[in-house]
Amino acid sequence: MSRLEQQLAFIVEIDKLKHIYRKTKVIGAEGLGDRRFENSAEHSWHITLMAVVLLEQSNATVDLLKVIKMLLVHDIVEIDAGDTFAFADQSNKAKDEAAAAERIFGLLPTDQRHEFMTLWQEFDARESAESHYANAMDRLMPVFHNMNNNGGSWAEHSVTRAQINKRLSPIDEGSHEIWQVVQKMLDNAERLGYLKP
Amino acid sequence: MSRLEQQLAFIVEIDKLKHIYRKTKVIGAEGLGDRRFENSAEHSWHITLMAVVLLEQSNATVDLLKVIKMLLVHDIVEIDAGDTFAFADQSNKAKDEAAAAERIFGLLPTDQRHEFMTLWQEFDARESAESHYANAMDRLMPVFHNMNNNGGSWAEHSVTRAQINKRLSPIDEGSHEIWQVVQKMLDNAERLGYLKP
Repeated sequence: MSRLEQQLAFIVEIDKLKHIYRKTKVIGAEGLGDRRFENSAEHSWHITLMAVVLLEQSNATVDLLKVIKMLLVHDIVEIDAGDTFAFADQSNKAKDEAAAAERIFGLLPTDQRHEFMTLWQEFDARESAESHYANAMDRLMPVFHNMNNNGGSWAEHSVTRAQINKRLSPIDEGSHEIWQVVQKMLDNAERLGYLKP
Repeated sequence: MSRLEQQLAFIVEIDKLKHIYRKTKVIGAEGLGDRRFENSAEHSWHITLMAVVLLEQSNATVDLLKVIKMLLVHDIVEIDAGDTFAFADQSNKAKDEAAAAERIFGLLPTDQRHEFMTLWQEFDARESAESHYANAMDRLMPVFHNMNNNGGSWAEHSVTRAQINKRLSPIDEGSHEIWQVVQKMLDNAERLGYLKP
């Protein structure tokens, strides 16, 4: 296969991310009648654009292009490994996702396979400034979804404030300013009964 | 409202793009049982990542970050103006989309409102190298969807080869190399009866 053929095979394959449903629902403004579960492809668009808009809120100066690439590919392993609920058993997650990354990024020419594999690993390791900011975006989004859906997946699974504080703490690593806003939203969520104290 | 509050209001508002359905269906591998229409949010993710992967195929050297931002925001006006079928009456499209851009980008702080408005206009004008490449990505994607869905929206609406050649011609402005591949795919589509001669 030519380089271009390899690239196009990858592009067609990742269409499958549109079939991977998360545990959060789209906000679904009244009247739109489509309060369905969100898929990982549309989620990836949303948090990538959020990263562009909120760049100035990052604690550290980051390479935006790198953050964007990281967010565009961070969920692709779910095509094979599925989306795991944040508070569920995750014992096979690392192994399944590593195999998925090998297969799916493996469709690309060697240099691009390596670039995406490295970006995905960097995102997961949460050590670099870019990965801190990128992870903050990923953790932040469900807050908006659940706050606009009467508690959404928090209420449904009886999540506690302590659990969610721990789960969302990477937001603070990425942006202290956004973390302050999130804390106020979580206070409100507790008051509304969306989160258990 | 503070800058951050304005930015977050925009982020929540654009969730609605997940409710805007296009005329193409997701590829829907056998067994996934979800051959539904594609929405503009997941489409935006797909073509943005495609732009990253195919960058070397661009006729001109382009600023990738600018291309990415353009693709991330290019369909947001559809939240108010809807998705128009490429071969349908488009007489109100420009006016409706301009009003949508004013309202939705208008949620952002002035500098970002201006940046996104300018990017969206640049995408539509198809004059800069970045917009040529970005438009090529936007036009290319439905080819994969229709080729993998027995002709999809082409077959359903009896589209002719001449119509589709004209519709897809911006691909050539963005990448001669990809245009050659597309021509072979369209030859095949005609042979398979997906397109009328």
